[in-house]
Amino acid sequence: MISVAEARQRILAALSPVGPEVVALSAAWGRVLAAPVAARLDKPGADVSAMDGFAVRAEDCARPPARLRVVGSAPAGHPFRGTVGPGEAVRLFTGSVIPAGADSVVVQEDTDFAERGEGAGEVEIRVVPKPGAHVRPRAGDFAHGTMLLSPPRRLTARDVGLAASAGHAWLTVRRRPRVAILATGDEVTLPGDPVPEGGVVSSNGFVLESVVRAAGGEPILLPIAPDDPEAIAAAVAAARGADLVVTSGGASVGQHDLVRPALAPLGLALDFWKIAMRPGKPFMFGRVGDAALIGLPGNPVSATVCAILFLVPAIERLLGLPGAAPATVRARAGARLAANDHRADHLRATLARDADGVLVATPAARQDSSQMAVLAAADALILRPPDAPEVAAGEWVDVIPLGGRDI
Amino acid sequence: MISVAEARQRILAALSPVGPEVVALSAAWGRVLAAPVAARLDKPGADVSAMDGFAVRAEDCARPPARLRVVGSAPAGHPFRGTVGPGEAVRLFTGSVIPAGADSVVVQEDTDFAERGEGAGEVEIRVVPKPGAHVRPRAGDFAHGTMLLSPPRRLTARDVGLAASAGHAWLTVRRRPRVAILATGDEVTLPGDPVPEGGVVSSNGFVLESVVRAAGGEPILLPIAPDDPEAIAAAVAAARGADLVVTSGGASVGQHDLVRPALAPLGLALDFWKIAMRPGKPFMFGRVGDAALIGLPGNPVSATVCAILFLVPAIERLLGLPGAAPATVRARAGARLAANDHRADHLRATLARDADGVLVATPAARQDSSQMAVLAAADALILRPPDAPEVAAGEWVDVIPLGGRDI
Repeated sequence: MISVAEARQRILAALSPVGPEVVALSAAWGRVLAAPVAARLDKPGADVSAMDGFAVRAEDCARPPARLRVVGSAPAGHPFRGTVGPGEAVRLFTGSVIPAGADSVVVQEDTDFAERGEGAGEVEIRVVPKPGAHVRPRAGDFAHGTMLLSPPRRLTARDVGLAASAGHAWLTVRRRPRVAILATGDEVTLPGDPVPEGGVVSSNGFVLESVVRAAGGEPILLPIAPDDPEAIAAAVAAARGADLVVTSGGASVGQHDLVRPALAPLGLALDFWKIAMRPGKPFMFGRVGDAALIGLPGNPVSATVCAILFLVPAIERLLGLPGAAPATVRARAGARLAANDHRADHLRATLARDADGVLVATPAARQDSSQMAVLAAADALILRPPDAPEVAAGEWVDVIPLGGRDI
Repeated sequence: MISVAEARQRILAALSPVGPEVVALSAAWGRVLAAPVAARLDKPGADVSAMDGFAVRAEDCARPPARLRVVGSAPAGHPFRGTVGPGEAVRLFTGSVIPAGADSVVVQEDTDFAERGEGAGEVEIRVVPKPGAHVRPRAGDFAHGTMLLSPPRRLTARDVGLAASAGHAWLTVRRRPRVAILATGDEVTLPGDPVPEGGVVSSNGFVLESVVRAAGGEPILLPIAPDDPEAIAAAVAAARGADLVVTSGGASVGQHDLVRPALAPLGLALDFWKIAMRPGKPFMFGRVGDAALIGLPGNPVSATVCAILFLVPAIERLLGLPGAAPATVRARAGARLAANDHRADHLRATLARDADGVLVATPAARQDSSQMAVLAAADALILRPPDAPEVAAGEWVDVIPLGGRDI
């Protein structure tokens, strides 16, 4: 058996980033940047005012109150074309270009303005401005050519805004990796379809479809394949063009575990691993043509936990990201945890804060790997390393919080 | 001036959830549930095996090794039609229905099976099974009629899987709130368009569009309106059918703050608030026809911080969710923080872990509200409450981590 970390490392090592595509800025949020974004302009493009007020020459205002002649008004987007001479001022607003001759801005609240039409008139300045006061210097946010965003990077709302402000209407991002999803099993039906005796409604396909979307991939939900080698081989063959094929079910050791032999004739290189973890020991990984293949266990909790531990990092790697292990936080155990065996365990747990505001993770009473209701209600997975000793209630444990990216 | 909390409370109080719509299960991930989801079936639908092995009568195996006649094989989805009699066993696989007469499952590894074709043969049982061992009882995950998911709830991948497993092909969710976005200003251009002297490329519209998507709304990016009351009024009038109109710019106190008077003729009830916060003091809130209206400041950092503090909760409220304040965590200050004035401050900061693994938030050197590059590079906002005293480096502060939902 191999460790969780080694399994993830092997998967990541076998995957390469997919190609880039160009998307409109409005479609770039949440995508993974594939080319650097440099500023195409200075921001701001000129010295501008940070406030509503008056552009002045600081030397004119050394002995308040100073009375200045207002020779014009320069709203944002309408720069003053002249020069501010001795004893003169120009009315400004936030974002207005500082006119030639002026070196400072006096905010409106520190003035008394007698307007005589067309923005002209006389203003009394009641303070001594520091030279440069309330002036945002040209290129103070960034200068033309500054590298603003470097790949790989999942673009936030702020990043999109930054790219916009730097003059980019298009961004180069990784295309969404195409992930084909194949649930297998004679007993599996689609929701809403009749359920035969001994049948079960498919959930893995829909969990995986959601996880693929959450991670930034494009899911392709294949029809459910019966436990028949030819049907499974045909389904996977039909997924050509996918970057990754994810199967669920059929990866255990029993007689009816057909995925592996079914795919052998497709000429694939397939590793069958036992990962030292619970839930989710049986696992397949390999390649079918141009696609990588991940075979997840059929039990829904096992499939979901394996998707969090391995599929999300795999998709991130296809997007050019590092594909890190899920983030963990520390919490106090809300109950005694028995000593663990040699398999890393992932206990479904709820999170709460104790009276001191400390995070407490309490394992669910039922940890069976078939129980979707417990999994959906969980807030976190408590990590139990291989051979971890018993933990008393109140001791510290590492947990993976669930719910991020709505997974 | 009103506090941040009061402003958010006033906004939430003025908003009601939008109506529901029905979506296919495959489109339900991340949407907000609007109707309860009860189980339409027992899961599992019968007592089933948790392992690959043999269905036995425990009493037959009291003195190992027991030799049992294998009278059939029942793969998942193909229940055994007969009854397991004394001295008999049926071969099972994970998910197989436990046949009548049997009460326990012995896992394959604890047996020695001599197959004689068609799944029949003889099996040696080397252990004493506990009655009920490795049997998942009917309805052990959930019973028909059990309430599984209650609204309001943003549906995770696990929730979607749970709904699938309970027989739901469709879910009732809140429709996405339509949020019209209006950037204003004579100086504002779209990315890629020519930038006139004193001009600035729009970023707020793209930040807001991304934030609306992240929160679960449907953004409508209106053309940029010049600083002209009629143009602004026409733009907002054209947004009829929106649930919320968000403007940026024009909400300050200067002469060229036109949004408020521009919208008066539309018969709107508009509140103009000064919120005791930095960045982002000037703020509008009101109604235009059926739509609520939020007027954000024009400075990009102010607009973004206000979107995080007010727009995200507003959209959540339209989705029927509580619309909570952004979550905070505790961190140590990475530098001395000056005493604060009467306005709540939100310092752009980077996060790191110190040698002990403790989170450290270090404020950016530049805190000007026009600086998008600093904002995009930030990991968190350090909260400085009104009139907070000076904080020494290493003391605890509350921070809002950024980047969640790719905001």
